Amino acid sequence: MTTYSKRVEELLGKAGADEGDIVKVELKTGKTYEGLLMPRTGFGNKDCLILKLKNGYNIGILMDKIKSIEVIKKAEKRKATPSTKSRKKTGSRKLKKVSILHTGGTIASRVDYETGGVKALFTPEDLIDLFPEIENYAEISSRLIANALSENLRFEHYNIMIDAIVEEIKKGTDGIILTHGTDTMAYTASALAFAFENLPVPIILVGAQRSSDRPSSDAAINLIAAVQFITGTDFCDVGICMHATTSDDFCHILPACKTRKMHTSARYAFQAINSLPYAKVWPKEEKIEFLRDDYRRRSDVKDKLIVRKFNPAVKVGVLKAHPNMLPEEIMVFKGFDGLVIEGTGLGHIGIESFDEHSKENERVREALQEVINSGAVVVMTSQCLHGRVNMNVYSTGRKLVEMGVLGNLTDMLPEVAFIKLAWLLSNYPKERVKELWYENLRGEISHRTLQ
Amino acid sequence: MTTYSKRVEELLGKAGADEGDIVKVELKTGKTYEGLLMPRTGFGNKDCLILKLKNGYNIGILMDKIKSIEVIKKAEKRKATPSTKSRKKTGSRKLKKVSILHTGGTIASRVDYETGGVKALFTPEDLIDLFPEIENYAEISSRLIANALSENLRFEHYNIMIDAIVEEIKKGTDGIILTHGTDTMAYTASALAFAFENLPVPIILVGAQRSSDRPSSDAAINLIAAVQFITGTDFCDVGICMHATTSDDFCHILPACKTRKMHTSARYAFQAINSLPYAKVWPKEEKIEFLRDDYRRRSDVKDKLIVRKFNPAVKVGVLKAHPNMLPEEIMVFKGFDGLVIEGTGLGHIGIESFDEHSKENERVREALQEVINSGAVVVMTSQCLHGRVNMNVYSTGRKLVEMGVLGNLTDMLPEVAFIKLAWLLSNYPKERVKELWYENLRGEISHRTLQ
Repeated sequence: MTTYSKRVEELLGKAGADEGDIVKVELKTGKTYEGLLMPRTGFGNKDCLILKLKNGYNIGILMDKIKSIEVIKKAEKRKATPSTKSRKKTGSRKLKKVSILHTGGTIASRVDYETGGVKALFTPEDLIDLFPEIENYAEISSRLIANALSENLRFEHYNIMIDAIVEEIKKGTDGIILTHGTDTMAYTASALAFAFENLPVPIILVGAQRSSDRPSSDAAINLIAAVQFITGTDFCDVGICMHATTSDDFCHILPACKTRKMHTSARYAFQAINSLPYAKVWPKEEKIEFLRDDYRRRSDVKDKLIVRKFNPAVKVGVLKAHPNMLPEEIMVFKGFDGLVIEGTGLGHIGIESFDEHSKENERVREALQEVINSGAVVVMTSQCLHGRVNMNVYSTGRKLVEMGVLGNLTDMLPEVAFIKLAWLLSNYPKERVKELWYENLRGEISHRTLQ
Repeated sequence: MTTYSKRVEELLGKAGADEGDIVKVELKTGKTYEGLLMPRTGFGNKDCLILKLKNGYNIGILMDKIKSIEVIKKAEKRKATPSTKSRKKTGSRKLKKVSILHTGGTIASRVDYETGGVKALFTPEDLIDLFPEIENYAEISSRLIANALSENLRFEHYNIMIDAIVEEIKKGTDGIILTHGTDTMAYTASALAFAFENLPVPIILVGAQRSSDRPSSDAAINLIAAVQFITGTDFCDVGICMHATTSDDFCHILPACKTRKMHTSARYAFQAINSLPYAKVWPKEEKIEFLRDDYRRRSDVKDKLIVRKFNPAVKVGVLKAHPNMLPEEIMVFKGFDGLVIEGTGLGHIGIESFDEHSKENERVREALQEVINSGAVVVMTSQCLHGRVNMNVYSTGRKLVEMGVLGNLTDMLPEVAFIKLAWLLSNYPKERVKELWYENLRGEISHRTLQ
């Protein structure tokens, strides 16, 4: 997908230069640049040639400043049109089909050199053009289903993703990659995990902590690792493929319902909590090592796919417990369908008075009881993140259980609990929701471990 | 403090057995137990002798079942009355004065063998009696200022703690240990850090993840390490002393404003985030190793102590961002003095619509603007916990800054942000609060690091 201006195209044509070639550009000032000729990606000045320099940085050179262009090395592997199998370097082996569904986010964004901010501007084709290597491993098809910064996604968008995935499955895909902003990627991963029962193909969510046109971007390694993992293993579940370290070595395949973004900016931000990654993938070495044996395999696929979507009208809130809670902070959830409490410690919130200065805790307890009585399903998780809720140990916990707060002895992440509760309330009557809360449906609850 | 019944005292007197001795108890059934004769701790049946067995467990033996008691080994070090310097094993060196202020929690609790739960039942003297070793290192005074499960503590209780600490300082203490439940210990640590300017003595918060009478309790090692650290170093700040590993080896001294409880039950639950522990303390080896050089020392104490307390009427809320936010979840904070948002990623919340399914995000933005316009100081933190808020990178963040959300480029933990905001609003006018938000007052903000 070339979108250079006609003038630039003519200049490139004269030099015999194609995108992907290594070229040397001499400016009228005498200065020269050597780098990979990049495709234009649909934004900015079309008279501006884009080179990826050896140091990894992209630069733009205005056509009018260019004196000459010389091809140093022709591109080896591919032209910019996607999805043609003939270019496969490893021979005649039939490639698996991998569908990439784009939803926006940093992986599909670039630095805006005007504002210094990041813009979500890549098209699906642009993204494949940036990482042509992925077509060595699979027959790639790619489409845009949303172009969102992931913090803006809502339940409706989960349903759009679910529909798109079902469509790809019907078309006969061997696996799905969903590119996604990292802010709420873990929420979406669990949403997709719950949505599909008897999933026939793997779904791997991929994001990037650095935008794709930055030399430090982890977009390429994450995407390539995901393609290798889908095509090279029998894994058949929902996972997240993200960079595991600060260097360019390997990615983790992380469990959809046990993963959390644990750093605002680092490349190793995604961590399995109360769990382990499924596997390590070294994309350069094309090496995959499983860290667990308890994953769902393609051979486990027996029954027909069942899809259960989200009801956008379901109202689920999140309440983070903190000292000095005020009753109104809880009362707002009266009439909600569900509420996830992120409690302190083993799963507590200050609901007991022990002296004349803690009487307000009784108002907090009354408010919570009123929310429960209004019909909200209220569940407990812990802001400690690691470890299990245990409301048997202290009087606060026992009182909460008595009041009707669910979640005792579970170890669900608060984010996963939010998604599970919204999904259960979208699909089951409340009495069934309360039973299913304690069932490990998609790996969201670990088996009871001894302390 | 002996509270055995007169009958038991007579029996012990006949055998020449004192608390602290190793005794062999023969039952009328012929069964024998050997163990350390423990003091009674003010609850339960006073006719019941308490032995600490070699395996670490305490057992109670009813007087009427006992046939004979034989002293195997006399106690070496001490009798049960606290605070007498003559017993100091290391000779005539004058011991430093350490004040222990008890506020309840697991460290001051025991397993209730009737219900299986944990009860907060120890008195301050009981606790010292359980860990007599601490009197080898300091002249200990000890008093109860609250008996709370820490999830029930409110701003008023911070003020009670502050007053008690000031009183101990006036009495000439060399350092303060505050025993505390672990649920909100990190919140309290930062509350005390903010409350005191020019602190003249160290304050170390100590808790336990396992109740003190359990063989696996970390209460002893945490408490002894805190006493050693206060008496053995020039540290003069607020810190947390908690077990660092799963085995009985060493404790960490953690920074008051950079620490979080990161496990519901493990002994190594307390972790420094975006920071490092100040030191390691090996209580058995009486060894201390500093991991940082940037701590406040006793030699830094120059100016007069300034105390700023909490205003219990200040209303500060916490809002954890999640997908599918509803405007009413935000509107509840209208009229609050402050609001801490725990955003996604670099500090975001879904306030932008990008298609027809995300229109509700605009309502969320309007609600947030209304809260800000009502006068609430709204600050951003990240649910990633690690890393820095950066609202310059994406349009969502830039919009939030424009709307008046504070916190850009800070790396405050959400819990510390909650305490700092409540404390600032208790002591300063709002315009000054907004300036001080960006100032590193007590180590709550790390210096800017390059990514």
